[in-house]
Parts: sequence; structure tokens; C-alpha cells
Amino acid sequence: MIWDYDEPVAIRFGAGRIAELAEAIRSLGGTTCLLVTSRHFVDDGTAQRLIDQSDGVITEVFSDFSPNPDVTQVDACARLIQAKGIDSVVAMGGGSAMDLAKAAAAIGASGGTITAYHGTGVPVPPKHLPLIAAPTTAGTGSEVTCVSVLTNRAEGRKAPINSDVFYPAIAIVDPELTYSMPPHVTASCGMDVLSQAIEGYWSKGHQPICDALAVHAARLVFQWLPLAYAEPLNAQARAKMCEASVIAGLAFTLPKTTSSHACSFPLTNLYGIAHGEACGVTLDYFARINADAADGRVRDLAQSLGFGSVSAMADAIHELKVRIGLRCGLADLNLDDDDIADLVRISRHPNLYNNPVEITDAMLEEMYRDLALRDPRDGCTVSEGSLQSRRREDALACAGEGKGM
Amino acid sequence: MIWDYDEPVAIRFGAGRIAELAEAIRSLGGTTCLLVTSRHFVDDGTAQRLIDQSDGVITEVFSDFSPNPDVTQVDACARLIQAKGIDSVVAMGGGSAMDLAKAAAAIGASGGTITAYHGTGVPVPPKHLPLIAAPTTAGTGSEVTCVSVLTNRAEGRKAPINSDVFYPAIAIVDPELTYSMPPHVTASCGMDVLSQAIEGYWSKGHQPICDALAVHAARLVFQWLPLAYAEPLNAQARAKMCEASVIAGLAFTLPKTTSSHACSFPLTNLYGIAHGEACGVTLDYFARINADAADGRVRDLAQSLGFGSVSAMADAIHELKVRIGLRCGLADLNLDDDDIADLVRISRHPNLYNNPVEITDAMLEEMYRDLALRDPRDGCTVSEGSLQSRRREDALACAGEGKGM
Ligand SMILES: NC(=O)c1ccc[n+]([C@@H]2O[C@H](COP(=O)([O-])OP(=O)(O)OC[C@H]3O[C@@H](n4cnc5c(N)ncnc54)[C@H](O)[C@@H]3O)[C@@H](O)[C@H]2O)c1
Ligand SMILES: NC(=O)c1ccc[n+]([C@@H]2O[C@H](COP(=O)([O-])OP(=O)(O)OC[C@H]3O[C@@H](n4cnc5c(N)ncnc54)[C@H](O)[C@@H]3O)[C@@H](O)[C@H]2O)c1
Ligand SMILES: [Zn+2]
Ligand SMILES: [Zn+2]
Repeated sequence: MIWDYDEPVAIRFGAGRIAELAEAIRSLGGTTCLLVTSRHFVDDGTAQRLIDQSDGVITEVFSDFSPNPDVTQVDACARLIQAKGIDSVVAMGGGSAMDLAKAAAAIGASGGTITAYHGTGVPVPPKHLPLIAAPTTAGTGSEVTCVSVLTNRAEGRKAPINSDVFYPAIAIVDPELTYSMPPHVTASCGMDVLSQAIEGYWSKGHQPICDALAVHAARLVFQWLPLAYAEPLNAQARAKMCEASVIAGLAFTLPKTTSSHACSFPLTNLYGIAHGEACGVTLDYFARINADAADGRVRDLAQSLGFGSVSAMADAIHELKVRIGLRCGLADLNLDDDDIADLVRISRHPNLYNNPVEITDAMLEEMYRDLALRDPRDGCTVSEGSLQSRRREDALACAGEGKGM
Repeated sequence: MIWDYDEPVAIRFGAGRIAELAEAIRSLGGTTCLLVTSRHFVDDGTAQRLIDQSDGVITEVFSDFSPNPDVTQVDACARLIQAKGIDSVVAMGGGSAMDLAKAAAAIGASGGTITAYHGTGVPVPPKHLPLIAAPTTAGTGSEVTCVSVLTNRAEGRKAPINSDVFYPAIAIVDPELTYSMPPHVTASCGMDVLSQAIEGYWSKGHQPICDALAVHAARLVFQWLPLAYAEPLNAQARAKMCEASVIAGLAFTLPKTTSSHACSFPLTNLYGIAHGEACGVTLDYFARINADAADGRVRDLAQSLGFGSVSAMADAIHELKVRIGLRCGLADLNLDDDDIADLVRISRHPNLYNNPVEITDAMLEEMYRDLALRDPRDGCTVSEGSLQSRRREDALACAGEGKGM
């Protein structure tokens, strides 16, 4: 299905619509466009195909960046923009490509370095190049958000920057771009969609338009993520997950995410757990913690999604993680007291204060201690040494008991 | 509750927020602003209060217009804009005030006459003054739509004009402005919200973001309209209806309305039935006609709203009309064959082609013939002469049987 939505990012959704890229660049007045994309799309020829189709409008490619892009990579991209007289930017990739491009399109136009705005609270100047975002994961929703999540590896900090400057002008959401996602990336990114929808809903900053969109997106994830994971070429499952992803983006960009996103930052930074998977680790925990919060709103959410209770919704999140191979525990990390203290400390991120229930350090510590004893595959409590020997069959057998948390 | 939504119309929702009007005008660069508002708000002192609070920014008031505003009134307002050097426009009123102001803010800037664009298909030129819309009815959603519905009484035509130029820059949705709506206006406008949500959902132009918003809005109407009707000063009911109204606006502005709106135009033009009430006359009819259409989407809608079937949803629409005093039949109009032929002919409006089921003239005729025999109060079939003598008690008693159509 093809659909448009024009607020405030013009969304162009539908299989094959990346073919409209050159036209979209021109509609923004672009004549000398930089394509920001990951190595994957350079290697598989997609980047060259788009350049060839662009009638000379795309003049440069930038792909020197990593997942969870670094502030130094943003500055390098901004310098390329300035050196080559770039007037417009396309980001084709996952959240990492889009977030880097958002920041570079601003710094490339206004000068300076992104470090002036990362974790400093200084507002990003309004000058920026027009940006087109084409997501290749069904995950972050970054194509419609005003957030750029960047990492400063030198200072050990991962943090989002919010700015209206970061809204892309156009989002081209072409499900075909996601077909090549490996299953584990599909799973992790899909869990990001679910986290963003659910956290956007229960965030203190909730509002009714985002509520309605969050319910829509979360329902699609429960329904379609297992199939998108199992059958990467299933066009319907991919399209439904892309729909969920962009709608979840609209659902959280204003209310902001909460506790699970706050806790994801140390899990990604310290242990390299992918963003969506890291959010998912604690999502069912916080569902239980928030169950009665916010005037029964979390219960309403569970009910809107067809669950009899918040606890049943938390169980379903857990079961989804087991089914798509996402981690449900941290026992394999062999966390000691100091590690847990670090996780607690670094989880105290601004997003935590959007959570409808006040989260104390004691609550975080209890949660991480519990997770530290749980098998990553199934969330069952493990005794020392048992982790290596437990077989997949056991894991499945205990899923029922493990889902208590 | 206070909430913002910034796509593409910046929505500022919340009781008392009309106090932010002057600030909003200045944020758009306005220094010499025209206030378009109906007599009601001039007479009750609201207009003067806003002028006093505006520090001289609001310099003119225009209130020479009628419900279902005429193209000549638009042109008169545009001439005032030009004569007084107006640089920004505020519309505070129902759909009539907002639609007139949208058109005048365009014609006032670009020159000429609105008749060049009304029913002609000629696109409205892009030049226009920035517009702030503050609805005082919970009805049209015009504060977030790109539609201006105008009437050309000289040519006997009521028709919408669609143009991106008509999007207000800011919508201030202050439920307190709606407290003074008389019950019958509350009822009619509320039925407009329901029609727009349901028609936006089943329109051929449907898309998932609007789907989610339509469900949210329709659910609120069923839940809160009877209370807003019965208790005009019930702050929660008024706020919920305003929420429904603005969200239904977002839900239909892209998919467009369908059959009930098409049929409303002759009912309003020829018989003076208020817009929302006119839409409601046929809404349950078309729900039944569309029941199995669009891949079961109408069934999904009914289910999402908590009804066991589309037929149950249609019954609920009928019961809602009876409860809030909206007409369920046209027997009092004493329609003859020629009248019915006129209704059929004028209902063949472009919106009719957005309906998921093809609507033939024979279907329209059958519907209008049936309506022509039904009591306006309760939709029960009436025999000649019985209309005057039937008492209210009878009407209620027969609601069960009447709800078949
Ligand atoms: N800006 C926002 O609103 C927002 C929201 C959530 C997360 N984020 C951030 O986005 C980043 C995560 O983004 P992500 O989850 O999309 O992953 P990603 O962009 O980091 O991509 C993950 C890996 O998958 C590869 N990949 C992406 N699409 C592919 C495809 N179609 N086929 C094959 N390989 C593909 C990438 O090259 C990369 O190696 C994190 O930094 C996270 O914090 C941003
Ligand atoms: N542009 C759109 O998107 C759109 C959508 C649907 C309908 N419409 C059009 O909008 C018009 C109907 O608008 P409406 O239903 O809001 O009614 P309206 O603006 O015609 O107002 C109806 C009456 O109520 C009065 N009124 C309004 N608010 C009041 C208040 N708070 N207190 C007391 N009196 C009040 C008005 O002065 C008027 O006399 C029709 O022309 C219809 O076709 C436009
Ligand atoms: Zn995320
Ligand atoms: Zn209407």
C-alpha cells in the first residue's frame, strides 16, 4: 500500500518509492547532494544505482561511520559537506546513518563542531541543509523524529540531542530497503519500535495523538515481528514493520522515551548490546513497575493491545524476546557489584525522569541484580556454571516459569 | 490537560490557552492582525477582551458572515485585509469563521476573487497571510485541515476547496471557547466529528496514521458527546469533544470524507439542516451499505470501537442521534418525487467517489425515499398526518424498531 502523510515530515511510504529520491531532492532545491549510507549499501551496489538514477544530483557519498555514530564522525561528515559545496543531504540507512546525517546537515551549514551541542544543553543553531531520510531498518523512526543520538567515545557518553533542526524534510519509507536486514538486526530494531511505542505511551509527556499512534504501532509489532524475523523476504511483514516503525517514531518524538531507553545507554556503551535489544532487556520489567501508574493508563494500553492485564502484556514482551532470539538476561556478562553499580549510575539519564513512576537507584539495582542472574536466552534464573551447559531445549521448557520477570 | 502537537499545524491544546493568542500572532511575525469571529463573540465581549490583551496587535474585527459562509463574504473580508494593510489573521469561531478566514487570508494576499477557485478546479495561488485558528465548536476540525467549505448562494452551490495554502500555521484549541455552544449546536457539531472520523476511516484514501486517529476520535464521541450535550459546562466532556474534534480533523484531511458528507450538501443547501446534523442523517445508512467493503476494514472499525458488528455500530449511531435530538428522518419536509430527484442529483458530489462502495443513483433514491417516510425525532416510519400527533413517549418506545435503518 502507498500512502502519504505531510506533518511535519512529508512521509512517502511504499515499496519501491526510493525511486522517487532524485525528484524529492530536486523538490527541496537540491543540486549537489551528499548520500550518507552505510558500507552495506555501497557494497551491494544500491548507492551506485541511486547515484546513476539521480542525473548528477548526488555528487558525494559518505560512509565512514559506525553503528552508534561518534561525534568525530559527524564532524568529519560536516567538513566534507563544506569542502564539496553540498546543498542537500540524503541519509539511507538505519538510525546510525540518519542520526549522523541529521547532525552533519546542521553542523555542515552552521559551522563549528557537534561536540558543542552534545550533552551540553546548548541549542543547535537553526541553519541546516534540507535532509531526506530513507530508513533501511524498521526500528528507530529517526526519519520522522527531531532526535539525533550520538556517542562521544572519548568521553564515554551516548546521548540524544533534540532539536527542531533535525526534522528531515521528507521521509521515504520503502520497505524493500529493509529486506536485507539479517534476522538479528530485524529482531533488535523491531524491539526498538515496541519500546518506543510503549514508552511514548506511558511517558509523562504523553498526549492523545501520540497515544493513538503508539497503540497502532505496538499492535503491529506483536502481530508481525515474528514473521519479519522468520521470513526476511515476506513483503507484507516487512511493510507492516516499516509502518509500525514510522508511526512509533511519530508516537514518541514528542512524549520522549523513558526508563528502558535510559537503561539501554549503558548496556550499549559498556557491553555492546545493540540499541533495540538493549531497550528490550528491561521493557517487561518497567511494564510491571509502571502497571498501576498514570491513572491506569498503562492498564488501558495493555487492554487496547488485547491483553487482559499489564502482567500479560509483560509476559508477551518476554515471550516475543525468546521467540526472536533477543536477550532476556545478563548472566553471560558475569556482572560483579562494581559493574552493577556502574549500570545503575549510568542509567540515571534524563529520559529516566519521563517514566511515570519515580525510579530510585534501589529499584535499578534490584532490577540489574535480578537480570545478572538470568539466562540471556530465556530469562530463567541460572546458577553459577550452568549457563554453558544448559541446552536450548531446557530453555524453551522453562519459558513458562521464566516469564515471571 | 495541556498538550502540543507540531505537525504540520502547530496545535496548542488546553483550557485557557486562548490567552496565548497575542504571543502566537507575534511568533508568526504579525503586527497588524485581523480577528475574524462571529457576532456571538463580539456581543459577549470575548473579541474585545482579546483585542485588549493583544497590545495593539489585533487592529480589525470582521464578523459580517453567516453560517455556511458565502463567497461574497470571503471577498468582502479579503478587501478589508487589503484596505487595512493586514499582515496576519486569527479565526475564532466554528467551521464557518475558520473556512471564511482561510479563504480570505489567501485572497487578501494574492488578490482577485475566491469565485475563481470555488468549484472551478483552478488551484489557489500560494501567497497567503499566516493564519491562527481557534475553534469554538467541537466539530469541523477545520483548524487542522486544508479545506475551506464555501457556498455560492447566487449559483446554489456549496463545495469544499482543498489547498495546502489553507493549513493554519497554529491551531489554538481551547475547550473553554466551546462552553457557550447551545445544546443543539453541540449535538450537530459532535455528529460532524463522528462522521468525519468514520468517513475518513472508510474512505478510499485511507492510510494507517489517519486510521489510528479516526478510531481514537470516534471512540471519544460515542463516550462523551451525550454528556457534553446534557451538561454544557462539564469541562471534561467539553475537553474530550475538543480532543475528538481536532484529532478527527487530522484523520480526515488527507483521506477526505465520503458519502455522508456528499449527501449533507443538498440537505444543508435546500433545507437548511446544519452541517453536522445533515451528515448524521445518512451516516448509519452508509455504515450498513459499506459494512462488508474495503477488505473488512469497516468491520475492523466497528470492532475497534467495541461493537460486535457494523450493524451494531449503525444502531449506536442511530441511538446517539435520538439521544441528542438530531434528526433521524425527513418526513417533516414532505418531500415529493421532484425533491427526491433533486437530492439524488445534488448528492452526486466528488466526495461520493471516495466511498468504498460505489453509490448509484438508485441507491441514493432508495435511501432518500426511505428517509422521506421517517420521523425526524426517532427514525420510525410514519404514515401521513401522524407526524404532528405522535408524542415524544411513542418516539422513545419505538426506538428499538426504528433503528433498523
Ligand atoms: N534518532 C532517533 O529518533 C533514534 C531513535 C532510536 C534509536 N536511535 C539510534 O539509532 C541507532 C540504531 O539504529 P538502528 O537500530 O537502525 O541500527 P544501525 O543504523 O546502527 O544499523 C545496525 C547495523 O545494521 C546494518 N544495516 C542497516 N540496515 C540494513 C539493511 N537493510 N540490510 C543490511 N544491513 C543493514 C547497519 O549497517 C549496521 O551495521 C542507535 O545509535 C540508536 O541510539 C535513534
Ligand atoms: N474546513 C473543514 O475542514 C470543514 C469540515 C467540516 C465542515 N466544515 C464547514 O464548517 C461549517 C460548519 O461549522 P460549525 O459546525 O463549526 O458551525 P458554524 O461555524 O456555522 O457555527 C454554527 C453557529 O454556532 C455559533 N457558534 C459557534 N461557536 C459558538 C459558541 N462557542 N458559542 C455560541 N455560539 C457559537 C455560530 O456563530 C453559528 O451561528 C459548514 O460550512 C461546514 O460545511 C468545514
Ligand atoms: Zn530507540
Ligand atoms: Zn463535516
